Amino acid sequence: MKILVLGGDGFCGWPAALYLSARGHEVVIVDNLSRRNIDNELETSSLTPIRPIGERVRAWAELTGKPIGFHNINVAEQYHRLLTLIVEFEPDTIVHFAEQRAAPYSMKSSYHKRYTVNNNLNATNNLLTAVVESGVDSHIVHLGTMGVYGYGASGIAIPEGYLPIKVENGDQVIHREILYPADPGSVYHLTKTQDQLLFAFYNKNDMVRITDLHQGIVWGTQTDETLRDDRLINRFDYDGDYGTVLNRFIMQAVIGYPLTVHGSGRQTRSFINIRDSVRCVELAILTPPKKGERVRIFNQMTEAFALIDLAQMIASLTGAKIAHLPNPRKEPEANGLHVENRSLIELGLRPIKLDHGLLREISEVPKRYAANCDRSKIPGTAKW
Amino acid sequence: MKILVLGGDGFCGWPAALYLSARGHEVVIVDNLSRRNIDNELETSSLTPIRPIGERVRAWAELTGKPIGFHNINVAEQYHRLLTLIVEFEPDTIVHFAEQRAAPYSMKSSYHKRYTVNNNLNATNNLLTAVVESGVDSHIVHLGTMGVYGYGASGIAIPEGYLPIKVENGDQVIHREILYPADPGSVYHLTKTQDQLLFAFYNKNDMVRITDLHQGIVWGTQTDETLRDDRLINRFDYDGDYGTVLNRFIMQAVIGYPLTVHGSGRQTRSFINIRDSVRCVELAILTPPKKGERVRIFNQMTEAFALIDLAQMIASLTGAKIAHLPNPRKEPEANGLHVENRSLIELGLRPIKLDHGLLREISEVPKRYAANCDRSKIPGTAKW
Repeated sequence: MKILVLGGDGFCGWPAALYLSARGHEVVIVDNLSRRNIDNELETSSLTPIRPIGERVRAWAELTGKPIGFHNINVAEQYHRLLTLIVEFEPDTIVHFAEQRAAPYSMKSSYHKRYTVNNNLNATNNLLTAVVESGVDSHIVHLGTMGVYGYGASGIAIPEGYLPIKVENGDQVIHREILYPADPGSVYHLTKTQDQLLFAFYNKNDMVRITDLHQGIVWGTQTDETLRDDRLINRFDYDGDYGTVLNRFIMQAVIGYPLTVHGSGRQTRSFINIRDSVRCVELAILTPPKKGERVRIFNQMTEAFALIDLAQMIASLTGAKIAHLPNPRKEPEANGLHVENRSLIELGLRPIKLDHGLLREISEVPKRYAANCDRSKIPGTAKW
Repeated sequence: MKILVLGGDGFCGWPAALYLSARGHEVVIVDNLSRRNIDNELETSSLTPIRPIGERVRAWAELTGKPIGFHNINVAEQYHRLLTLIVEFEPDTIVHFAEQRAAPYSMKSSYHKRYTVNNNLNATNNLLTAVVESGVDSHIVHLGTMGVYGYGASGIAIPEGYLPIKVENGDQVIHREILYPADPGSVYHLTKTQDQLLFAFYNKNDMVRITDLHQGIVWGTQTDETLRDDRLINRFDYDGDYGTVLNRFIMQAVIGYPLTVHGSGRQTRSFINIRDSVRCVELAILTPPKKGERVRIFNQMTEAFALIDLAQMIASLTGAKIAHLPNPRKEPEANGLHVENRSLIELGLRPIKLDHGLLREISEVPKRYAANCDRSKIPGTAKW
């Protein structure tokens, strides 16, 4: 298949692009390098020494004989370059990772709230509009987030996107299936709930074929492909804005920094390993919705843990201490989280569970690159 | 009260600003004159000879001794000018009309879809962010649309924003109240459903006080205030993009053009007179939500009619013919529409019904200015 990967230089996009290329798909990356530029802004960098995108794709072609194209395009701003690329490349699938993806970053200041809304919504709308205008029947695979559902505080088990409801209407009872009511916890999550409305509209009005992957928190760093050569190494974020909780705990344990648990740690979150994430993206690509089918929504997560349980698991493996800090987020102190995730399992996903993959992850990346860690970047600074 | 009116040069914004000023409020208008610029783009103009905003506010001050301030600011793009104005003026209320408001315009081309999303969502997000950053506890009164509910095709009666639902959750039945599930019929309506998510988030996270007025289709042109002097006259749109259905029928009847009914005309819509619209805005301003109260949603409509019934009513009054044209919209041929609208009635609204106001409207504006009509602008051109 011909696959365009928007945001293909990022933490999920890069290993996904390589995974898809390795399996024989023709891959073209679009990225404006915004994630690298944000590192400059935040005065931090990936723990791992990631190479420039040009070197990355040259190394991949040299090793595998499989070229990956690259275009530096800002999807949110350079509509006509995106449209031209779609018209010329005629992708079967467009994977859409091209959004600002950190909740703390989205809440740092008014600038960051505004950047996130402007970037994420214009990127998604430009993509949908370009697919319609191009006349190319590309299947859009979007990386959403489990955060569109909120923190599970409603007590309702989380289905894969659509919730059956009953409404009393005079003497009748009406049955309907609706998008699970949104309850975002940050401006970043908010934009993903607004994306859902964009997808629903263009799907209804223009029959655009869309799969929305509501992903849990990704842990792990490397995949079989990124491990093939040091020049292909994936990024690893441990800072207070972009570092995700489990990767931060692992890093902290390795360098002897107390594991930073915000609040009680009874907040439950869903997780998925980076290797499973890239597999899920291909599973979604290989089974596109039919023309006219409603937006397909999969919950791309494999396990759920309370944060304190994760911290204790890592503490017992490594001897790290646990430090409770104030929670910067407005959220319930504790929440249940019951998530339906059958779809991707039924398509063939065999999850990598934390109790098997954790030790490998610790030795593969954080230990090897611990000397690169700037401890001053570990504390979070955004508060909301 | 000190009231900032964003979009105060427009069809609803201008009479609202005058109405509020006449009642003793201190009014400042913000507008980037985008609606006038779009007339330039579409090569059309208001049937009524509206005056430049500077002349409008000078005439008002001269007649009443009540100055209305004016700032030419693009709310979607000039964040810091908006923020500075809020900090300096400290408005009790900010009325937010500053969005592109025509469904057909939003669907004309990829440019128009993209403009509408970019303009409307950045305007709303900038406003919310600026209120939070300013520290000024302004109550935001937003002009939404009945279109967020879709075409009423779900068969569920439309409440004022929030729908009580039941969900089966294992053995339990869980009761919740949710935002009425969105089902927008154009990119314009889509942006208003996305606005709702912005409001819900900033209300939850920052306790911003918000009233969202889901307005029906406005008919009528003049108010007591705009009638005081020709220099204060309100705009009247009859073109295929911005003209609303009832005003278009009236115009067509006056100039002997067949009433253009799209499809069967069994589509039912909700309506409100312009004089009632400005009263509703003041009612919302005078009864703000308490700090911490959820977003207040009122359905700002007074009557519902099938379009064919409206056409027949006007035909029987005027002898006009009816022409059935293909429907450019993707929507059900016919729909029921049952709308709850008690809130504004309970606050004191006494609606102007169509059967009393229609003849006055015909003679007040379309007859007087019929010679200005460019018949070539009547047909709609957007199709979706």
